[in-house]
Amino acid sequence: MLFRRKTTTTKRVYLDWAAATPLLPAAYEAMVPYLTEHYGNPSAVHQEGQVARQAVEDARSTVASAVQVRPEYVTFTSGGTEGNNLSIFGVVESFLQAGREYASMTVITTKIEHPSVGEAFTALAKRGVRVEYVNVTPAGKVDLEHLRSMMDDSVVLFSTALINSEIGTIQPTRAIHKILHTADARYGTNIFYHLDAAQAPLWVNCQFDSLAADLVTLDAAKCCGPKGVGVLVRSRRSSLVPVMQGGGQESGLRPGTENVAGIVGAAVAIKEAQGDWRKRAEQVTSVRDQAIAHMQTELSQAVINGAAGVDRVANNINISIPGLDTEFAAVVLDKHGFAVSTKSACSGAGGGASAVVLETTKDPIRAASTLRITLGSDSTLEQLKTLTAVLKKHVKQMSQY
Amino acid sequence: MLFRRKTTTTKRVYLDWAAATPLLPAAYEAMVPYLTEHYGNPSAVHQEGQVARQAVEDARSTVASAVQVRPEYVTFTSGGTEGNNLSIFGVVESFLQAGREYASMTVITTKIEHPSVGEAFTALAKRGVRVEYVNVTPAGKVDLEHLRSMMDDSVVLFSTALINSEIGTIQPTRAIHKILHTADARYGTNIFYHLDAAQAPLWVNCQFDSLAADLVTLDAAKCCGPKGVGVLVRSRRSSLVPVMQGGGQESGLRPGTENVAGIVGAAVAIKEAQGDWRKRAEQVTSVRDQAIAHMQTELSQAVINGAAGVDRVANNINISIPGLDTEFAAVVLDKHGFAVSTKSACSGAGGGASAVVLETTKDPIRAASTLRITLGSDSTLEQLKTLTAVLKKHVKQMSQY
Repeated sequence: MLFRRKTTTTKRVYLDWAAATPLLPAAYEAMVPYLTEHYGNPSAVHQEGQVARQAVEDARSTVASAVQVRPEYVTFTSGGTEGNNLSIFGVVESFLQAGREYASMTVITTKIEHPSVGEAFTALAKRGVRVEYVNVTPAGKVDLEHLRSMMDDSVVLFSTALINSEIGTIQPTRAIHKILHTADARYGTNIFYHLDAAQAPLWVNCQFDSLAADLVTLDAAKCCGPKGVGVLVRSRRSSLVPVMQGGGQESGLRPGTENVAGIVGAAVAIKEAQGDWRKRAEQVTSVRDQAIAHMQTELSQAVINGAAGVDRVANNINISIPGLDTEFAAVVLDKHGFAVSTKSACSGAGGGASAVVLETTKDPIRAASTLRITLGSDSTLEQLKTLTAVLKKHVKQMSQY
Repeated sequence: MLFRRKTTTTKRVYLDWAAATPLLPAAYEAMVPYLTEHYGNPSAVHQEGQVARQAVEDARSTVASAVQVRPEYVTFTSGGTEGNNLSIFGVVESFLQAGREYASMTVITTKIEHPSVGEAFTALAKRGVRVEYVNVTPAGKVDLEHLRSMMDDSVVLFSTALINSEIGTIQPTRAIHKILHTADARYGTNIFYHLDAAQAPLWVNCQFDSLAADLVTLDAAKCCGPKGVGVLVRSRRSSLVPVMQGGGQESGLRPGTENVAGIVGAAVAIKEAQGDWRKRAEQVTSVRDQAIAHMQTELSQAVINGAAGVDRVANNINISIPGLDTEFAAVVLDKHGFAVSTKSACSGAGGGASAVVLETTKDPIRAASTLRITLGSDSTLEQLKTLTAVLKKHVKQMSQY
């Protein structure tokens, strides 16, 4: 009884926007008619089907307009993981279908990717594809010189996150494109460039041309849309073999009856996210930077992981407090009303060090003591100061054992 | 203006339940809190995450109880297509991982499956797996004698729909199991048995043991749950390699942030569907049989496709009217307020003959003139009599050209 009363009166401060975001009320409102009234299958020819078809195609146009591509290059998926899998396997299988052997293909990524990219590359290695990893800097940026040195006529794919989900590093996507493009010209290759932009729409420009990639994965759940819906945006030259087989939905790339309500909600969320990303990013960056400065004053042991300034996404704070059991610290913060994480949710809530921070810092103690605090558009400095105070008290208590 | 007024005043009669179903109000109500209030990522350790995790695990228990398996054997997917792909590719890749070569494996299905099964088998053939097709009877049932004759030590998988989505034939699943089980004993094999039961929960018993299969695909959208959610139920002995790579969600079988709201709604729908399938099936069978009798009286040209009696799912009417352009007839019926289809939505709204009816009847004219009328729990004989009258008038008009 006491527990229940306490829970419902505690004001929660949600600071795990990289893991999940609240559904935008406008997205929810847009979804409701397709959950209640309009239940047709978009592939059906009758009126109920055509209402659903129109909703899906309107959503496609909305997303296309938000990222400035033609609607035919927008494919709806079941989320970011599926978009990444479809991109990575789709490109390699397409080369295979065109007569290339697995062993003749090189695919390149980093060692700090989300599991849906990292594990897909591991699976490609099992198929016999040559998998290589480009170095990243201590800030988590792709080492461009190293990438340039890896280019040869066997390379078919390069994949990275536009924004790292743990440390928030923004990759120099146009510089990467230039290296791949130069290699294409030199070796007569067609290197496909995949960007996992799941963390991007709320905070950076996702206009497709400006990203200069061939395949861009979005995830509605990470930008105030519903869970279970993603978008894969592709360039005109992209050729993909689908991962799943079935009906010809989504231009044959993604079979199965469309999640109409989810697709409708995703489109509203992505449009809204991109509509005012700059204003949102500026405001949150300001809160974030003041909070980091405050933390560094209050918690002298804390070290910031990731990049500084414009190379870091607006809403990401990732600190290590060497020696501290941050899994436990996250639980203590939770009890005080703060929802934070130690690393990415998909990397396992079960614990263990951050592979991203280990790779970028080469420091196991730092990698084992991370806290990821990802802000939302409504996060305040006051909230982060209170969080810092709770954390400081906890660190002090722990140091007494 | 006239068209608009007419459309909004026309009472619609929806008779395409095999393509899509209305979302159960109770399922919708259960989803709403997870769309609005509880937006946490189930993999996150904090309170918001744990509320979401609890919802997913409660849903898993609900589904497990509805089909009578342990919760660990229930995997949530993005729909029936994904469940079928995961089953079919998952079994073959699992054998591959255990050291079997593609060329040493035989997989068996029929030629009347949904594209998500049929195309998956085609893809397996491209990988070098031996794909064989068991004959079906004119009613669409697996030819058990033929199946028995196909058994040898190379067979690893048999897959069919429990209920054919076009003609509604219910397969003799226990007799099929017996043949596979006998072969296992004789050849020392482990033949996995996959049932696409997407059309089943509203109308037949889906208790897992009674189906006697290793892998059973369900699709929430086909039993009054939300679109974009499916369930794969598997036996204890089943070993699957996932189709997609990523985080360890769904016991590693299906990575990606869970569609929490969708999963919650799916569980409610599946539970309700199975809760009173028998009463629902009896009532609708009665309406269906009277409607078929009426149609055969009124439309002497009409021939019924599929099985009779207990071998036909309660809500399916599939007729051919040889010589009639039934694509056009479906449009005419739509204008009169009746939503029906010619074949399965996933087989393409674009037209063309029914591959299912062609395979079962070997009659191209019959296959090119199908109408699929799939009833819901609220469909009435009166509605079907009116539909028959509209159809009769249309047939008469067409015969005058």
